[in-house]
Amino acid sequence: MLDSKIKVGIIGVSGYTGLELVKLLVNHPIFTLVYVANSQGGGELGQIHKMLMGLSLAHLPIHKADAKEALQSCELLFLALPHKSAMEMAKEIFTINPKAKVVDLSADYRLNALNYEANYCPHIDKENLSHAVYGLPEYNRESIKKAHLIANPGCYPTATLLALLPFAPYIDINCGVFVDAKSGVSGAGKGFSETSHFSHINENLFSYSPLTHRHQIEISQKCGDIVQRNFDIVFVPHLTPLTRGMLVSVFATLNSTLSAQEAKEVLTKAYENEPFIRIRDKPVSIAQVVGSHFCDIFVATRDKNLYINSSIDNLLRGASSQALANANLMCGLDEGLGMPKVPYGIF
Amino acid sequence: MLDSKIKVGIIGVSGYTGLELVKLLVNHPIFTLVYVANSQGGGELGQIHKMLMGLSLAHLPIHKADAKEALQSCELLFLALPHKSAMEMAKEIFTINPKAKVVDLSADYRLNALNYEANYCPHIDKENLSHAVYGLPEYNRESIKKAHLIANPGCYPTATLLALLPFAPYIDINCGVFVDAKSGVSGAGKGFSETSHFSHINENLFSYSPLTHRHQIEISQKCGDIVQRNFDIVFVPHLTPLTRGMLVSVFATLNSTLSAQEAKEVLTKAYENEPFIRIRDKPVSIAQVVGSHFCDIFVATRDKNLYINSSIDNLLRGASSQALANANLMCGLDEGLGMPKVPYGIF
Amino acid sequence: MLDSKIKVGIIGVSGYTGLELVKLLVNHPIFTLVYVANSQGGGELGQIHKMLMGLSLAHLPIHKADAKEALQSCELLFLALPHKSAMEMAKEIFTINPKAKVVDLSADYRLNALNYEANYCPHIDKENLSHAVYGLPEYNRESIKKAHLIANPGCYPTATLLALLPFAPYIDINCGVFVDAKSGVSGAGKGFSETSHFSHINENLFSYSPLTHRHQIEISQKCGDIVQRNFDIVFVPHLTPLTRGMLVSVFATLNSTLSAQEAKEVLTKAYENEPFIRIRDKPVSIAQVVGSHFCDIFVATRDKNLYINSSIDNLLRGASSQALANANLMCGLDEGLGMPKVPYGIF
Amino acid sequence: MLDSKIKVGIIGVSGYTGLELVKLLVNHPIFTLVYVANSQGGGELGQIHKMLMGLSLAHLPIHKADAKEALQSCELLFLALPHKSAMEMAKEIFTINPKAKVVDLSADYRLNALNYEANYCPHIDKENLSHAVYGLPEYNRESIKKAHLIANPGCYPTATLLALLPFAPYIDINCGVFVDAKSGVSGAGKGFSETSHFSHINENLFSYSPLTHRHQIEISQKCGDIVQRNFDIVFVPHLTPLTRGMLVSVFATLNSTLSAQEAKEVLTKAYENEPFIRIRDKPVSIAQVVGSHFCDIFVATRDKNLYINSSIDNLLRGASSQALANANLMCGLDEGLGMPKVPYGIF
Repeated sequence: MLDSKIKVGIIGVSGYTGLELVKLLVNHPIFTLVYVANSQGGGELGQIHKMLMGLSLAHLPIHKADAKEALQSCELLFLALPHKSAMEMAKEIFTINPKAKVVDLSADYRLNALNYEANYCPHIDKENLSHAVYGLPEYNRESIKKAHLIANPGCYPTATLLALLPFAPYIDINCGVFVDAKSGVSGAGKGFSETSHFSHINENLFSYSPLTHRHQIEISQKCGDIVQRNFDIVFVPHLTPLTRGMLVSVFATLNSTLSAQEAKEVLTKAYENEPFIRIRDKPVSIAQVVGSHFCDIFVATRDKNLYINSSIDNLLRGASSQALANANLMCGLDEGLGMPKVPYGIF
Repeated sequence: MLDSKIKVGIIGVSGYTGLELVKLLVNHPIFTLVYVANSQGGGELGQIHKMLMGLSLAHLPIHKADAKEALQSCELLFLALPHKSAMEMAKEIFTINPKAKVVDLSADYRLNALNYEANYCPHIDKENLSHAVYGLPEYNRESIKKAHLIANPGCYPTATLLALLPFAPYIDINCGVFVDAKSGVSGAGKGFSETSHFSHINENLFSYSPLTHRHQIEISQKCGDIVQRNFDIVFVPHLTPLTRGMLVSVFATLNSTLSAQEAKEVLTKAYENEPFIRIRDKPVSIAQVVGSHFCDIFVATRDKNLYINSSIDNLLRGASSQALANANLMCGLDEGLGMPKVPYGIF
Repeated sequence: MLDSKIKVGIIGVSGYTGLELVKLLVNHPIFTLVYVANSQGGGELGQIHKMLMGLSLAHLPIHKADAKEALQSCELLFLALPHKSAMEMAKEIFTINPKAKVVDLSADYRLNALNYEANYCPHIDKENLSHAVYGLPEYNRESIKKAHLIANPGCYPTATLLALLPFAPYIDINCGVFVDAKSGVSGAGKGFSETSHFSHINENLFSYSPLTHRHQIEISQKCGDIVQRNFDIVFVPHLTPLTRGMLVSVFATLNSTLSAQEAKEVLTKAYENEPFIRIRDKPVSIAQVVGSHFCDIFVATRDKNLYINSSIDNLLRGASSQALANANLMCGLDEGLGMPKVPYGIF
Repeated sequence: MLDSKIKVGIIGVSGYTGLELVKLLVNHPIFTLVYVANSQGGGELGQIHKMLMGLSLAHLPIHKADAKEALQSCELLFLALPHKSAMEMAKEIFTINPKAKVVDLSADYRLNALNYEANYCPHIDKENLSHAVYGLPEYNRESIKKAHLIANPGCYPTATLLALLPFAPYIDINCGVFVDAKSGVSGAGKGFSETSHFSHINENLFSYSPLTHRHQIEISQKCGDIVQRNFDIVFVPHLTPLTRGMLVSVFATLNSTLSAQEAKEVLTKAYENEPFIRIRDKPVSIAQVVGSHFCDIFVATRDKNLYINSSIDNLLRGASSQALANANLMCGLDEGLGMPKVPYGIF
């Protein structure tokens, strides 16, 4: 039995997505977390994530991130690092061991070099970029299974693409595709800033980076990559006064009228064998997905107007559980192995 | 001095908008609240609105709603009643005194009969409907001054129309106008239901009545009435986990490209003399308007894509303070008399 | 392997504690949920708890609660019913099968008849009451293992007793023991009322039933039953604007001075072998226990003044996971079998 | 009319209490805000407090704090500075003009030198400390009227003392007085830290500095100063997931039994002429005081056990509106001049 275990590590364990990975791995029957690291190193895992007290994992020492050391103990590495740091680490990993398995949760391998450099910074690892696989299992499953480097999708792109892609053939490409997205505050990370201050967020609502957010280009490029449709994506994200969860409205214009029933069938067919997509008869709500890997989707139409509505847990399906699904696939395991079975919610 | 006072009453004082009217009138230098009523009558105002304890107003007796009695003591009446009850009361009021002044906060006089009956119920007071004035001062100020019956706009239409109308000439009428609106829970009123249950709303987000909400037709009709543009309004409202405030995204397609600066100038020109519209350089936030009569508006563009973003206090600008503005105008007073000067927020 | 499964049922599956039991059982390796019931019956489990969509459990038919039918399919039954209904059902169950195993989450078997009838209603099942075991494993583990009927403790008593009991010998019995407790709104259940209305709870705080809440007598009696100390418990619960979790302050006067270190040692000794009690060095917080079976405890002293501070998830340790721990023990299983390993929180 | 205006200034206008003072002064008929300052100076008031846009006050230039300049334009100064900075400024002010009027919102003049230095830092202005008046109008009104320097009480002490002082003669001084206090997050100020991070506070509850918070000594000393009772105050404050408001439980042991009615009469008599104290028949709630200067108080007893329960707006009665009340009294004005008349709440 012990032989069948696969040793994995998390580089960048201090943040929210690092913690969520730890929690998922606690329940995983095959993956064993043996290495955790952050930029400084020092102390034990239970000291930075105090809710882990009482678990044996709480005593894992925190290493100073080091590619070589990580590769000595792990078969697969999750990178939960800021962009730029992630590609520096990945590049080093693959230099040491070209057959390593890496799931990168940052943006560094999601875009082509042109788009990346226009929106982030110079790309320093174009070689690995060229063979990285975008880790959206519903659309790239077979490639993921063979990949060594997964670009784990962004949270907004995950929720948006899962809603939008089935309708790609039906949408009038001459009209804008308008995406109004709402995220819990955990999406902004653990850092301190005005937009993470309780008194700023609580009893408040606002959009940020409208029409200029970097996930806009990720959504656009992936529509092209996956379904060869160059939509004019108009993307407006919002911060909302809750900790986790994400809700997306996609508005588009249809080539020709679809009834509500026909629209629902488009979804049903697209996802009929997908265990983590749930087609809903009523507008979706984040409380029914938070704590799970599910993406819930609802669709409504009126004449040529299309409204698609999806929800995910931004830290799970939008980050860590999607990383786990990708890791499972890369290791020949069932995609849903170790996944939480039920959301946290009580209604 | 006493002679200059104008006696007013509120019929339907038990709900949120009734209470907000009471609070506004406490600070009003000319209007004196002398009559409050609800459907049963009985007790004093401070008993149903306990936060009023300590004010002399708390001892106002609550009458059983009665048009005749109300008219004996008041020059102007606010109706904060459910739709249908409102038109029953208004009809009776004008039968008794055709020169009465009424501000109706319900939907009963906002739509033409055709639209009303298709979305609400049979209209029993078409006579008064024919001369009711839609109380959006920025667009109907002169008519309001002469009106006897004001149809106080809905909260979503107020926030949407104030954002949308300045751009009416610039929008491609062949494309949909997509409105993604977010409201605090107070918009759903005081009643008990799943959608007002704390554990349902808290840490949650969801849309409701997408593409079928009754404020959609109000927005559509008023675009036609006010600027003679028949937009295809696609309206999706959301409940969000906060008590008051409203945020609106309007997405539309422009006839031709407008720069961000040109778009801002459209707003600036439209509202240059309007003291309660604030054009913002950054996306608006509800915490900066809650507690006030302000409507904040921000605009961004990219190519032919237009994003307009507005925020209001749903209970004030979306209901009670707009009712007060209308009442002020009907009585020849300054539109902003008695208005709160600053929002509640602390950032 | 199948033979080793134990079939269990939940009577009263519609409420929060019923749902939490379902979720725990989804992850349990031995218990298999085969029977769920509520007062009306009808439909499937996934229809009343929509977040279960996608699980095979979602298709469990909901029975109309019936003792005989339940006993035909189940070895052990959880009763998640209102008080009074619970004892009616339990009485019937034991009349049919005196060897049945029942975990009752209501108050019906927690108190002696005198205290029960003074605080609730006439007790109709004094026979079973006489042999019911109070299901607080840290104090009654051996009795629980042999019991047929478990009175699962109340949420406030669980958090209070786990904090207070280790200090019982040190507290001056002539002084009051003051308990200031704060609960999330889920503790008030799924019913609609002013105190579950979002706009009433949000941005608000208040105590309720101060000095008269029925959990006060449960705490008092159990101090007598378990450690033979008749404390004068002064109990004030509060509703707080969050969905789940419970935080308790216990203030008492010591017989003689205890240093902080000595006080901590009292806790450490009391719970050194208890896997679900965590002694903290800093004040506890509910975000570190919600989603888990943990009870976190912190203690501070100054001269003869004692402050003990505990936190639990009111729906898990305060109800459903404690019921599971009791069921595990009654069936000869490990107390923690099937328990969630980590809290939901992200800090 | 202009002659009757009194010019005032705020030094430390960037924080929450500075902003609340600005908002109160907007509505004040006599005080005119002519000078605002912070540590750096620069820009206009509306730039740091964006919700003020649209008011003429928004254009007030922000000065770099300077005592001399402030005194040239103002008769009275509010100091909304951190402790230590406050006494440096006050000392300078009184050196320049011994007849200046200053309301200091910091802790610098609240305690005697011994207590201050044991809990804060060395006191550099003992001379002015010796004649500073503790600004709790219900207990010190006549002294306040004659004062030049007001030590505006802390938020927790205000809510606690107003609840506790009427019962001072009835409380057994040999037993502890236990204070469990809950504050909204605004009490922690505008700074960024873990305890102001949304994801840390939201859906969470925890105490901080139990038995060691500096407001404990303020409460203790003032009981001695005002009613000559040296209570053993055991004080535990909590952060709660809401922006503003404060709720306090005081638990004490009575010398001899008081009925609920007798206890209520103690309150009624103590505060019968106080317009800003409201004695409640039910437990108080913060939503009924937030936005106002009211302190609501409720009392319950059982045998010799006493529970007193008070609520205030921590930023108003606990800071800025109390500062205004003191300023009014110092200037011979009505204590409540310019006060908000009604709370913000909607129930």
